[in-house]
Amino acid sequence: MRMNDPGLWAARYQAVRGHTLALAAPLSAEDCGAQSMPDASPVKWHLAHTTWFFETFILEVLEPGFAPFHPAFRVLFNSYYNGVGDKHPRAQRGLLTRPSLDEVKAYRANVDGRIVALLGGLADGAARERLAALLTLGLEHEQQHQELLLTDVKHLLAQSALYPAYLERPLAAAAASPLEWVACEGGVVTVGHDGDGFCFDNELPRHRQFVEPFALASRLVTNGEYLAFIEAGGYTTPALWLAEGWDWARAQDLRQPLYWQRDEAGNWHEFTLAGLRPLDLHRPVTHVSLFEADAYAHWAGARLPTEGEWECAARAHGGLPGDVPAFAHPSEMDDADVLRQLFGHCWQWTSSSYAPYPGFKPAAGAIGEYNGKFMVNQYVLRGSSCATPAGHARVSYRNFFPAGARWQFTGIRLAR
Amino acid sequence: MRMNDPGLWAARYQAVRGHTLALAAPLSAEDCGAQSMPDASPVKWHLAHTTWFFETFILEVLEPGFAPFHPAFRVLFNSYYNGVGDKHPRAQRGLLTRPSLDEVKAYRANVDGRIVALLGGLADGAARERLAALLTLGLEHEQQHQELLLTDVKHLLAQSALYPAYLERPLAAAAASPLEWVACEGGVVTVGHDGDGFCFDNELPRHRQFVEPFALASRLVTNGEYLAFIEAGGYTTPALWLAEGWDWARAQDLRQPLYWQRDEAGNWHEFTLAGLRPLDLHRPVTHVSLFEADAYAHWAGARLPTEGEWECAARAHGGLPGDVPAFAHPSEMDDADVLRQLFGHCWQWTSSSYAPYPGFKPAAGAIGEYNGKFMVNQYVLRGSSCATPAGHARVSYRNFFPAGARWQFTGIRLAR
Amino acid sequence: MRMNDPGLWAARYQAVRGHTLALAAPLSAEDCGAQSMPDASPVKWHLAHTTWFFETFILEVLEPGFAPFHPAFRVLFNSYYNGVGDKHPRAQRGLLTRPSLDEVKAYRANVDGRIVALLGGLADGAARERLAALLTLGLEHEQQHQELLLTDVKHLLAQSALYPAYLERPLAAAAASPLEWVACEGGVVTVGHDGDGFCFDNELPRHRQFVEPFALASRLVTNGEYLAFIEAGGYTTPALWLAEGWDWARAQDLRQPLYWQRDEAGNWHEFTLAGLRPLDLHRPVTHVSLFEADAYAHWAGARLPTEGEWECAARAHGGLPGDVPAFAHPSEMDDADVLRQLFGHCWQWTSSSYAPYPGFKPAAGAIGEYNGKFMVNQYVLRGSSCATPAGHARVSYRNFFPAGARWQFTGIRLAR
Amino acid sequence: MRMNDPGLWAARYQAVRGHTLALAAPLSAEDCGAQSMPDASPVKWHLAHTTWFFETFILEVLEPGFAPFHPAFRVLFNSYYNGVGDKHPRAQRGLLTRPSLDEVKAYRANVDGRIVALLGGLADGAARERLAALLTLGLEHEQQHQELLLTDVKHLLAQSALYPAYLERPLAAAAASPLEWVACEGGVVTVGHDGDGFCFDNELPRHRQFVEPFALASRLVTNGEYLAFIEAGGYTTPALWLAEGWDWARAQDLRQPLYWQRDEAGNWHEFTLAGLRPLDLHRPVTHVSLFEADAYAHWAGARLPTEGEWECAARAHGGLPGDVPAFAHPSEMDDADVLRQLFGHCWQWTSSSYAPYPGFKPAAGAIGEYNGKFMVNQYVLRGSSCATPAGHARVSYRNFFPAGARWQFTGIRLAR
Repeated sequence: MRMNDPGLWAARYQAVRGHTLALAAPLSAEDCGAQSMPDASPVKWHLAHTTWFFETFILEVLEPGFAPFHPAFRVLFNSYYNGVGDKHPRAQRGLLTRPSLDEVKAYRANVDGRIVALLGGLADGAARERLAALLTLGLEHEQQHQELLLTDVKHLLAQSALYPAYLERPLAAAAASPLEWVACEGGVVTVGHDGDGFCFDNELPRHRQFVEPFALASRLVTNGEYLAFIEAGGYTTPALWLAEGWDWARAQDLRQPLYWQRDEAGNWHEFTLAGLRPLDLHRPVTHVSLFEADAYAHWAGARLPTEGEWECAARAHGGLPGDVPAFAHPSEMDDADVLRQLFGHCWQWTSSSYAPYPGFKPAAGAIGEYNGKFMVNQYVLRGSSCATPAGHARVSYRNFFPAGARWQFTGIRLAR
Repeated sequence: MRMNDPGLWAARYQAVRGHTLALAAPLSAEDCGAQSMPDASPVKWHLAHTTWFFETFILEVLEPGFAPFHPAFRVLFNSYYNGVGDKHPRAQRGLLTRPSLDEVKAYRANVDGRIVALLGGLADGAARERLAALLTLGLEHEQQHQELLLTDVKHLLAQSALYPAYLERPLAAAAASPLEWVACEGGVVTVGHDGDGFCFDNELPRHRQFVEPFALASRLVTNGEYLAFIEAGGYTTPALWLAEGWDWARAQDLRQPLYWQRDEAGNWHEFTLAGLRPLDLHRPVTHVSLFEADAYAHWAGARLPTEGEWECAARAHGGLPGDVPAFAHPSEMDDADVLRQLFGHCWQWTSSSYAPYPGFKPAAGAIGEYNGKFMVNQYVLRGSSCATPAGHARVSYRNFFPAGARWQFTGIRLAR
Repeated sequence: MRMNDPGLWAARYQAVRGHTLALAAPLSAEDCGAQSMPDASPVKWHLAHTTWFFETFILEVLEPGFAPFHPAFRVLFNSYYNGVGDKHPRAQRGLLTRPSLDEVKAYRANVDGRIVALLGGLADGAARERLAALLTLGLEHEQQHQELLLTDVKHLLAQSALYPAYLERPLAAAAASPLEWVACEGGVVTVGHDGDGFCFDNELPRHRQFVEPFALASRLVTNGEYLAFIEAGGYTTPALWLAEGWDWARAQDLRQPLYWQRDEAGNWHEFTLAGLRPLDLHRPVTHVSLFEADAYAHWAGARLPTEGEWECAARAHGGLPGDVPAFAHPSEMDDADVLRQLFGHCWQWTSSSYAPYPGFKPAAGAIGEYNGKFMVNQYVLRGSSCATPAGHARVSYRNFFPAGARWQFTGIRLAR
Repeated sequence: MRMNDPGLWAARYQAVRGHTLALAAPLSAEDCGAQSMPDASPVKWHLAHTTWFFETFILEVLEPGFAPFHPAFRVLFNSYYNGVGDKHPRAQRGLLTRPSLDEVKAYRANVDGRIVALLGGLADGAARERLAALLTLGLEHEQQHQELLLTDVKHLLAQSALYPAYLERPLAAAAASPLEWVACEGGVVTVGHDGDGFCFDNELPRHRQFVEPFALASRLVTNGEYLAFIEAGGYTTPALWLAEGWDWARAQDLRQPLYWQRDEAGNWHEFTLAGLRPLDLHRPVTHVSLFEADAYAHWAGARLPTEGEWECAARAHGGLPGDVPAFAHPSEMDDADVLRQLFGHCWQWTSSSYAPYPGFKPAAGAIGEYNGKFMVNQYVLRGSSCATPAGHARVSYRNFFPAGARWQFTGIRLAR
C-alpha cells in the first residue's frame, strides 16, 4: 500500500492500535502487570513495547525536534534490539509496576497523536514512502503482539486455582470431518511471498525447491485422536520420540498437552480463554510442542510436513485466510475447502528448521534484527491460529518457535 | 491481656488490621500484585494471608456454622503450615492476579466482621480466654507482616529504573554520635521473656546462660564507617570473610550493600522508601547480610555479639522500644540512652544461630509450626527496625534470617 | 562387502578392533577412566561400549547358548538404546572405576574371540548375510568411537595445568594457499549415498534437491583469518551473531576458540594432541561452534554452505578421502584438488539442520535408534577430520552436533 | 610434645605418612583418581594435598634454598587457602589424571625425605619448636584426610552397580545393649581442651557454659530403631522435620539413610567398606544427616544434645578413645562404660551450630584459615568414628559438617 491518502493510513493505524487496547479491555491492571514465565510478557509490556516500536523506529527518525516521551522507556520497553541499546531483563518484565497501566496508556495516546500528526505533515516523496514502509512494519508487528498478548494472558490466568475466563463465551459443539489424504505431485515448486502486499523479510526471496510427491491430511488432528495416543501409552513409549523430546518430556513428567487436566472422576478438561471446559473430542488438539507433534505423527504412522510441502499444498488446495477469527479456541468448523483448518485454528508444526531462504537479506540497521538472528534451533509453523488477528495471515507466513514451546495455539497436521 | 472487655479487644483488633490497609494505601493494585523474588511476597498476598490466619485458626475453630469465605483461599493463602494442607507455590505468589485486590479487601472486611461478631457473642470462660490468646497471636502475626510488607515493597520498587518512592517524605540530616564501648560484666545471666505480656514461643523458657565479660558498641555502624571498609578493599580481601560468605559475595559480584549505587560521577546513592537519595554518611548502614556484617566486624578489629550478650546489655543499659517509629529509613537520631539505636532503626545481626532455648516447647497442632521448625541455618537478629510497627518490639524478641538475607532493615552493632 | 570369505572378515574385524586399543595405548589407566564433561566419555567406556555393541547386537542374537560376559555390563555400557533397557547415567561414566581397565580389556578379548568363532561357524545363507551387515555396522560404529576417543581425551588432558601431550610429535609449519571461490551451477541435484558400499541409514534415500547457483571456498578458514575476526571485535559485536549464539557466548564469556589461550606476553597458543603449541596462523581454525562459524562468516561477508551445496560441490570438484590421516591436528597441507581440505582436517559446519531425507526409514528394533531419533536441534557437518580413521569418510557422510559443540575438530568452509 | 628427640619425631612422621599409603594400598590407580561428588576428593588428591601441606607450610618456610617439587602443584593441590594463592577448582579434582598416582607417590617420597632431613639439621631453639608445632599440625591434618579418604572412596565405590568392597572382611553379628538414660546435673561447666597435648584452635579457649540438667542416651540409635522410624512414616510426616530438612528430603525424594537399599524381595541391605551386606539391626545407624537425626529424635520424643552437654557428659561418664578402630563399619560392641560408643563408631550430631568459643583466635597467616572461616551454617559433631585413625580422637574434638551431609560416618545419640 503506498502513501497516497494519509487519512486512510491514519484510519488503519488507529484501527489496529485500537484493537490492541480492546484486547486488553477485559483485564484488570493487575492482570496486565504479571508475567507467568520468561517466555511470556505482561499485557502492559506488550502495550508499551509496540508503542516503543513506533516511537523508536519512526518518530525518532522522522519527527522534527523529536524528544522521547520518557527517557527510561527506551530501555524498559526494548525487546531484543541490541542496535538500540540496553534492555530491561526479559524475565523481570512482570516487576515493572511502574510505569502504571494508566501511564502506559498515556504513552500510547501520546505516540499515536504524534504519528497521526506526522502522517498529516509529510510532503510527497521519499520520506512519505519510507514512512509508509515503516508504518506497515509497525502495524504488522503490533498484530504479532496482539496474538502474543492473548497466549500470554491465557498462560497467566491458568496459574490461578480459580481458572478465570478471559472472556465468557459459549463454545458450540460439533462433529469433526473424516481425515482424508490430499495428494500433491511435488517436483520443482516455488516457495515464498509473491505479489505486491506486505510480507516479512523471512518470506523472501521467492525461490525454487524440489519436493517429492506427498500427501497432506485434510484437517488437523483432533483431541479425540490425541487422547487415543495418550491412552495407548504415547507418553511412556520412548521409541516414538525424538531423543531430546523424550528427555524433555520425562524431565517435566509430561503426560498430556498444556492446559489439559483430569478431574478426580477421570474426566478430561481443557483450560481455554473461555475458562475451564470439558474436553471436546472433535476440536483440534492444541498447545502441543513439536516433540509431541512428532511423537504423535510417528505413532499414527505418518510424519510432519516440511514447510515447502505445506505451502505447496496450501497454494494448490487451500482457501484464503478468513477475516474474522474467533479467538476463544480452535474450533471444529470446516472452511469448505479440500484442505480444511489451514488458517484460524492452530499453527501447524512443520519438520523444517527455521533457516534463511537462499539469498535472504535482512534490512539494514537495528530493524534488521527482526527475524534473521533467530534462525537457529527453532522450527517453522505454518497457517495461523484462532488468536491471529484478521488480515494478518498469509500462505507464505513463517511463524517459528523452539521445539518445546507449548503456550501458543499449536496443532498437528499430518503428512506422509 | 485477658478478655475482660470485648469492646477493647475489638478496638485493638480493628486498629491493627486498619494499619495494614493504611500501609498499602500509597500503592496501586499493580504495585500490590507483584513479587520481586521468592523470599518476598506481594502486598496483596500479605493482606490475604494475614486474613487467612484469623479465618483458619480462629473462625474455623470457634465460629458456629463456619463456612470459608472461598474454598480456594485455604490453599492460595497458606504460607507454610503443612498441618493445614496444600499451599500455592511460594515463588508464584505474584501470578495470582485473581483474586483481585478488591476481592482481597472484601475478604478482609468479611473476616473482620465475623471476628468482631465473635468477640461480642462469647460468654465468659475458657472459650473467651482461648480466643484472647489466638487473637493476640494473630495480631502479632499481622504486625510481623506489616514490616515484611514494607521491606518487600521496597525490594519491588527498586526493580524499576524509575526508582519510585513509596512515600515522599524529607529525610533530615544530622551528625552521628561517637562510637563508645559499653562494658558488661557477664557471668550467669538470665535470658528470655519475663513478665505477663505476650511473647512468641521462641522467647521461652526464660533460662540461664554463662557470659564472659564483654563490651558492646554504643551505637550502630554508620554508612560512613562502612564506606571506609569498602574503600579499604573490604569486598576483595578474602581473609576478612567467612568462607561461605566469600563464595556467596563473589558468585554475585557484590561490592556494596543492597540498594547502594554509584552514579557516573562517583557519588554514592541509596534507594530508600522515600526514593533514591544521596548516601547519608551519618545514618546507620543497613541492608547488609550477616556475611557482610561479620566481615566488617573482622576488619574493624571487633566481632558481632551473641544474642545472650545483646539481651544482657540491653536489659542493663538500654531504653525501651519507642512508640512511633518513622518507617522511611534508619536515622541517626539518639535515644538518649547509653546504648543507642537498640530499637527502631536496624535489626542487629548476632553471631548466634537460631536454636531452641533449653526446654523449648512449640504449641500443639498446626500453629506449632510458627517458629520451631525454622531453627536451623538461620541467625538471630535483635532489636527492631524503622519498619517495625509501634508496640511490637521487645528486649527478648528473636528475629531470624539466613546469613545471606539483605532485604530487611539489617545493620551492625559491634562487640568485643 | 558380502560374506564370501569369513577369514577376510575376521582380519578386518581384528584390524579395526586392534586400532582402538592402539589409540588407547599411550594412555594410563587413570587417563582412561576420567570423564571431563557429560558430552565426553572416558576412554575405558569407549572400549567397553563398542564391545557391548557387538555382544548385544550380534552375539546375543546369533551365538548359540549365548550368556553375557557380565550381567551388569548390559546396563553399564549401554549408551542410549532404550530398546535394550536401562542405562548407567551418562554424566557418571567417569565414576566407574570398577570394572578396571584390565577387566574391560578382558571383556574385549572375550567378545572378540566369540565373534571370530561365530564367523568361522556359520553356514552360508541368510544368517551369514545378516552377520555381515551387523558386523559392518559394528565396525563403522567402532570407528566413530575411535574419533570420539581422541576428541574426548584431548578435552580431558586440557583440564590439567600440566597440558600433557597425548602423543609427542612435531607439527611441521607451512604456508596456506590463497582462498579462491569455486563456482557451482546448482539446479536439481542428487544428494545421498550411491553405490554398493556401506553407508549409515541417514545417508539414504538418495534424492533430488534444488540448489541455486553458489560458490564454495577452496579451503578452510585459517587461524590467521580467525584471529583477524577476533581482533576486529568479533566476540563483542552482537550484530554478527545469531541471537542464541550471542547469549551462549556471553553467558560463558567466550573470546576465542576452545583450546586457544594467550600467555602473559600476549602470544597465542593452542592446545593440541601434541601438547601446547604456538598458534600456527596457516593451519585451519578448529574447535569452533556453529555459532562462531556463523558469526565469522557474517563478518567475512559470506555464509555457511548447506549440506546439499557441500555435497554437490564435493562431488564435482573434490577429491576422495585420503587413506592415512595424521590425527595430531588439522594441517595446512593441500590435497592438490580444486576444493582442498575436504577430508582429513576439520569437519565443516553447514547451515543445515539435521533432518531425515525424504523417505528416510530407520532400521527395525533397538538398532533403529542409531540416527533418526537425534534429528532435532542439531546441525550437519560434512567432510572428515584429522581424527577420523582411515577408510571411514565418505562424500555423503552426515556428521551432526548441537550448535554449541566445540570439542570436535570442527572448522569453517565459507560459501556465498 | 616438644622437639627433644628428632629421631622420635621422624619415626612418628613416617608412621602417620605411611599409614595414609597403607589406606590407599587396596585401591587401583583408577580408584584413586575419580571424584564422585564435589564434596569428596579423589584418593590421589588426598595423597598430594597432605604432602602439599608439609611442603607449603614447613619446607617453604624453613628449608634453606627451598625450591618446589613442581611449580604447578602449588595450585593443583591447594584446598582452600586463599592466602597461598590460586586453587584448582574443587569440583574438577577428578579430572587430574596427570600427575599420575606414581608421580604423586614420588612427590610424597621427595617431601618426606626433605622433612626428615630438616628434622635432623635443625639446631635447638625457636626454629625447632616452630617446626614441632607445624609438624604436629601437619600430622593431625594428615589424619583428618585419612578419615576423609575412607569416606570418599566409600562414596565412590557405591556408584558402581558392582558394589565392590574396599576390603573384604567379615562383620561379626552381635546384640545391642538396652538404651538407658544417663543423668547429668549440669550447672556452670567447663568446656574445651585442657592439658598439654595437641588440639586444634577451635577447641580453645577453655571456657565456662551454663547447662541445665539433662540426660544422655547410653548408646547410639540402632539400625533397627531407625527402621521402625521409617516404617512409622518418618520420611513422609512433615511435622517431624525442620522446614529446611523437609524441603531437602523431598527435593531428593529421600526415604532411607545413604547406602541403604531394599532388594526386590523387600530385604534391606547396607553398602559398607566390606561390600553390600544385609542390614544388621543391632549396629548403629550411620550416614544420616542432621535433618534426619533431628527428625528421628523428634519422633522418639527426645532431642539431640548440645555440644556442651555432650562434652560435659563424656568427661563425667565416658571412657577414653580406644587405640585401634576397625574402619570397616560402626559396630555394636560395647566399650564397657556407662556411656558407650562415644568413640570409634559414629560421629554424633549435636544441635550446636559451629561457632567460635568466646575469645577464639585463629593463627596468623594462611594457616589461620584452618578452622575459623567455616564457622557458619555448619553443625558440630562429637566423638569419633570407625574411620578415625588411632590417636586422633579427643573429648574436646569438634568435627563439623553442613546439616545435609551424609557421607561421613554420622550417627545419632539422643538427649532429653
